Amino acid sequence: MWDRSRCSVAGTLSVVGEKWSLLVLREAFLGVRRFADFQRVLGAPKAVLTDRLATLVEQGILDRVPYQPEGERQRHEYRLTQKGRALYPTLVALMEWGDTYLAEGEVPPLTLRHRDCDAPVHLELVCEEGHRLSGPRDVRPEVATPVR
Amino acid sequence: MWDRSRCSVAGTLSVVGEKWSLLVLREAFLGVRRFADFQRVLGAPKAVLTDRLATLVEQGILDRVPYQPEGERQRHEYRLTQKGRALYPTLVALMEWGDTYLAEGEVPPLTLRHRDCDAPVHLELVCEEGHRLSGPRDVRPEVATPVR
Repeated sequence: MWDRSRCSVAGTLSVVGEKWSLLVLREAFLGVRRFADFQRVLGAPKAVLTDRLATLVEQGILDRVPYQPEGERQRHEYRLTQKGRALYPTLVALMEWGDTYLAEGEVPPLTLRHRDCDAPVHLELVCEEGHRLSGPRDVRPEVATPVR
Repeated sequence: MWDRSRCSVAGTLSVVGEKWSLLVLREAFLGVRRFADFQRVLGAPKAVLTDRLATLVEQGILDRVPYQPEGERQRHEYRLTQKGRALYPTLVALMEWGDTYLAEGEVPPLTLRHRDCDAPVHLELVCEEGHRLSGPRDVRPEVATPVR
């Protein structure tokens, strides 16, 4: 047995598993930074968006940074922190699965390309010896701290 | 602009984003197959577990397979389909983020190891030219079908 109360899957879900939170992150990864822009692209109710942004800031996933457009009052924009950027593989994994299993033969709406060489980008499961794994059957989960 | 209604992140979340669904998948990846075992390890209310398993079967993520222990009535077990196994990177991505940002210096409860060589396993973002990417800043999202 292992201590399921410490499971990182459940832990991460409890932080970012809510639908609007993850959609805010999706937009942040696409470059959206301002409240009005999140609201426009997501169509989220203002109260919901306010709440989710505040939670993501509290969690250290977004930074709330002041800026002042000329002649306007000070506003804030939301930028991904390192902790936030580290959620990128989660977003990519969700996207890849949806592209394969939900789009039903359609061209996926977004393709991710390597900025340097323009080749399509994918997630891969690799080991520290450099082997590519084909899936869960190649993996042995090891319990770090046995709990009786 | 791109057509956000077709977003695969949102689509995948709508299928497996619910907490208990993803915890059921976690256990399935760890080898759990029987209702009673899911119930025991997850501590989920029976009705919730019944509902989530049924949904995952409907979605083609789990197969419900009959088996009959000697001298007992026929039972069913739940096995990951190919579509289900394809969710593995999503689970690993959630786990890696939680291990890094939620465990606060503790040893993560589970380590994933390559069955063949025993080396630790990780997700990597790579392009089809074989380059390793360090994160979202190396990625250019390309809209496949411009809307308007």
